[in-house]
Amino acid sequence: MATRRSDPHPSLDGITTIAKYLLDRLAQVGVRHIFGVPGDYSLLFLDAIDAHPDLEWVGTANELNAAYAADGYARMNGLAALVTTYGVGELSAINGVAGSYAEHVPVLHIVGMPATDVQRQGLHVHHGLLDGDSGHFVRAFDEVTCASATLTADTADTADTADTADTADTAAAEIDRVLRRVVSEKEPGYLGLPTDLVHAPCLAAEEEWVADLATGALLGSEAEPALSGFVERAAELIDGATRVVVLVDHLADRHHVRAELDALIRAGHLASATTKAARGTVDETTPGFLGVYVGAAGEDGVRAAVEGADVVIAVGLHLSDLSSGGFTATLDPGRLLDLRPTHAVVGGVPCRGVTMAAALSALTAVVAGRGPAADDAPACSSRPARGAQASVPADAELTQAILWDRFADFLRPDDLLAADQGTAFEGLLAVRLPRGADLIAQPLWASIGYTLPALLGAQLGASAHRRAVLLIGDGALQMTAQELGGIIAQGLDPIVVVLNNDGYTVERVIHGRDAHYNGIARWNWSACPSLFGASPDAVVRRVTTVGELDDALAACAEPAGNVSLVEVVLGQYDVPPALSRLVRTVAAAGE
Amino acid sequence: MATRRSDPHPSLDGITTIAKYLLDRLAQVGVRHIFGVPGDYSLLFLDAIDAHPDLEWVGTANELNAAYAADGYARMNGLAALVTTYGVGELSAINGVAGSYAEHVPVLHIVGMPATDVQRQGLHVHHGLLDGDSGHFVRAFDEVTCASATLTADTADTADTADTADTADTAAAEIDRVLRRVVSEKEPGYLGLPTDLVHAPCLAAEEEWVADLATGALLGSEAEPALSGFVERAAELIDGATRVVVLVDHLADRHHVRAELDALIRAGHLASATTKAARGTVDETTPGFLGVYVGAAGEDGVRAAVEGADVVIAVGLHLSDLSSGGFTATLDPGRLLDLRPTHAVVGGVPCRGVTMAAALSALTAVVAGRGPAADDAPACSSRPARGAQASVPADAELTQAILWDRFADFLRPDDLLAADQGTAFEGLLAVRLPRGADLIAQPLWASIGYTLPALLGAQLGASAHRRAVLLIGDGALQMTAQELGGIIAQGLDPIVVVLNNDGYTVERVIHGRDAHYNGIARWNWSACPSLFGASPDAVVRRVTTVGELDDALAACAEPAGNVSLVEVVLGQYDVPPALSRLVRTVAAAGE
Repeated sequence: MATRRSDPHPSLDGITTIAKYLLDRLAQVGVRHIFGVPGDYSLLFLDAIDAHPDLEWVGTANELNAAYAADGYARMNGLAALVTTYGVGELSAINGVAGSYAEHVPVLHIVGMPATDVQRQGLHVHHGLLDGDSGHFVRAFDEVTCASATLTADTADTADTADTADTADTAAAEIDRVLRRVVSEKEPGYLGLPTDLVHAPCLAAEEEWVADLATGALLGSEAEPALSGFVERAAELIDGATRVVVLVDHLADRHHVRAELDALIRAGHLASATTKAARGTVDETTPGFLGVYVGAAGEDGVRAAVEGADVVIAVGLHLSDLSSGGFTATLDPGRLLDLRPTHAVVGGVPCRGVTMAAALSALTAVVAGRGPAADDAPACSSRPARGAQASVPADAELTQAILWDRFADFLRPDDLLAADQGTAFEGLLAVRLPRGADLIAQPLWASIGYTLPALLGAQLGASAHRRAVLLIGDGALQMTAQELGGIIAQGLDPIVVVLNNDGYTVERVIHGRDAHYNGIARWNWSACPSLFGASPDAVVRRVTTVGELDDALAACAEPAGNVSLVEVVLGQYDVPPALSRLVRTVAAAGE
Repeated sequence: MATRRSDPHPSLDGITTIAKYLLDRLAQVGVRHIFGVPGDYSLLFLDAIDAHPDLEWVGTANELNAAYAADGYARMNGLAALVTTYGVGELSAINGVAGSYAEHVPVLHIVGMPATDVQRQGLHVHHGLLDGDSGHFVRAFDEVTCASATLTADTADTADTADTADTADTAAAEIDRVLRRVVSEKEPGYLGLPTDLVHAPCLAAEEEWVADLATGALLGSEAEPALSGFVERAAELIDGATRVVVLVDHLADRHHVRAELDALIRAGHLASATTKAARGTVDETTPGFLGVYVGAAGEDGVRAAVEGADVVIAVGLHLSDLSSGGFTATLDPGRLLDLRPTHAVVGGVPCRGVTMAAALSALTAVVAGRGPAADDAPACSSRPARGAQASVPADAELTQAILWDRFADFLRPDDLLAADQGTAFEGLLAVRLPRGADLIAQPLWASIGYTLPALLGAQLGASAHRRAVLLIGDGALQMTAQELGGIIAQGLDPIVVVLNNDGYTVERVIHGRDAHYNGIARWNWSACPSLFGASPDAVVRRVTTVGELDDALAACAEPAGNVSLVEVVLGQYDVPPALSRLVRTVAAAGE
């Protein structure tokens, strides 16, 4: 959601240590905070982080929370790093790392391992499986990462023969290989760092590639003929089209093309829509913004406008069951300009070597000067008319409908929002995001509890302090609640809105409406900020009526350095319409 | 720690459903509670659990906690089952399952998966990696389980040809294959259950094997000649020995030989010791109990008695760096009777086919009638003389030394104890366990935070209500604190003692004594029971002096249905001597 900062760093020539080389690289590609939990196999590396002038350690309560925080940080900052310890630590983080893989979030996971000799001898050490094999965990991570390496010592041999296939590469080459893939593919990677190698000598970097990041050249060189072929085909489609719609999915934001997207939409006065995984990538207050497209699970007007367009320019599309409304998204390939990270497909014809950014810039020239199409932007609205619920009496019980109406008024430009999967995320579909708002959510991997730690990371990853608002269900918050302690310890001040509907309402909608397995332990949420170290001045409210909600939102609107918590008591079966539609369409898909 | 209950169940012949077959098998081998978190891919299976007359669902706040709870349950009950959902759920649990693998705890992990057709088509569904491959997660689990299967539908074909190698086995055969390995090898196993198969027909069980569990026959048939050869060799060693010591490790308890061990020790008036992974397996108040053997990291007297014995009968030995004191345990193979689960090694000579239970019974006959050796049981004590700290003034600040002295008096016969890795577990080494006490701990895998959820499971797995006491550090408790909510929701009443030393003191001893990365967020522990739903009557104390500790322990000694919480404030660098010794010996081993 932000551009990467690129700080050329002078210390990469000649001999350094493996830890310093790795940390310098991370700093070069814009990392400023590193998340994790200490463990004895990683303590020496943490010393190196402490000693690094440009990096700050952020400890979390457990490793899953660290992985979530790193994911949130990477979404804002362009890259994140996570440090855990062998076995117990890394495996605790794997669900978070897999989520980064599913949602294309670049996180480098560095794991402190037993010393090289201990591994070689197969010694039975703690945090291992006591069977002599120290490779179990990297193999598990190979399932959920795009690249991995277990670092080995650099010797004269490795330096001399690093480019022959049958010897180990230098540590620097391995670090660069994994990090380049993470950065270019926007997927997590894994580096195993044995304790004896932290301060071991590291031979010189073999090449400079960090500068390539800014140009996108890491994605592959662009062949000029391919680009002109692409433009020719695209122009042919677009020139004959009355209604052109830009449909944006999450890979657009991951590949940092917000500015190019904005230029395209403005140049051609184009209608636009996002998927639910890309909310915030396009300004939802722009004229011509249609809404969130979810196939048959979304609003009919949005679906008609997208699927009925003469041309759809899809940017970074990678649909899932949830984002396609149970595979009901129907985009005619013949009318589709499909812009993918490293190539484009125009009306079914692939154009290799055309990156997303280059394609967007080229298309901007193609559409320049188009006027708004008369029927491009039907009056479809993603939320009820503002103030529709304004006349509700103050003592009326809260409902989902009233809640989202109030939130539409509460949210502000540039808010940093997080909405957990379930009623929170689906309910927020009824609200147009304010200009400049970012939304941290995980609508594809959909691991509940993700957003609280992710918001910790996102707040640290944002380039400036922004008001932060978390919307999360009670069942989800129970998963990761302890990270409110980390948020408070960092001096952050999000407004945490707990949707307390006494259990997993999202599951109740799917199956087991009254099943006791969809219930959860009942917490006294009012004690939550106090346990986790909040100041006694923190706003803490439990609200059951409209008037109480209005008062609470007014009280916490300006956080002023303290976390706030508003517990919103809602009916167990009160479900946002978007969630009901989603469940119906997904069930129809036979999952 | 308990014997398995075996309930022959009549419904396994003929056609049933896959869910019912699996649940009947679990009930047959003694499972009464199933742990987990619901997810949409597992909801139908949860219905089947709800409908089963002998099984109860226990939901936890997150899946790692569920895995820990299942592990604690299996340690008491002999077997546990864990149910999670695809991707997000199962991966969250994997650290707990790996801990069960490292410490030989039999847990069956059942994972709700997308429908067979959805997997076959490679559809991009939520909780998956969106790359068309639904096999990633079972492959990750293959690294940390002894057996796995993804169930497939039974057809006439599978029934007819189930015993030929090139066709899929029936679901029943797959379930039995995995479950038998879990039960016999005392390791976790994995079953993937696609949603469409939950209520699918399941062809008859092919054989009855549950009854074999009681006899140990699952471990392999015992060859009578092997046993007599074993006895002959063992008698030769023992008959010439003055000092015979029985050294017990954790595999003894996992293979349920407590009664046989007790008989052996009594019959021969033998001295005994346990490793730290086997505390509670041998009654520590028995005459001749030497203490806990940790090589050079333990007490010198225990080491001298064990390593200087003429014969050591080792039962279920599987040492690690932490349990061997950094590999300083020195047991002469020529004087070792090494009883392993499925074979024995006598003075270096293997005796195949001799199970641990059979070997113990045979040895009991061999040693019968021996008198106590004059110098068998030196006056070595695992704790300071009782009351050594009794004269400390009530307003003295608390120290680790005083704490463990007080605990020696506080603990009672038959207490169910849990001590988390770090100062809690290592500090408790200074206390002799009362008769009948069980200790839930994870000294090999050593994942901090394990014990709180594990105690939830252990309390449910115990055959009767027992007073439960948890000793846990502040850093560890932050990892999994939310499961106090699950404990309270279940109506359990452990006494939770939080050792608050402001961070990871165990790491400070190892490295980074004053490093800020060894610090944690500061919680207000007094608010903890309230948040998690405890009754206002619960005893909640924060103690900094000896007098306050004495008062608090007196107030919570009889829990009476409520959870109690005592926060013990200790110095950051106040470390039990056993932990300092352990860190020194492990560091010397070059890890």
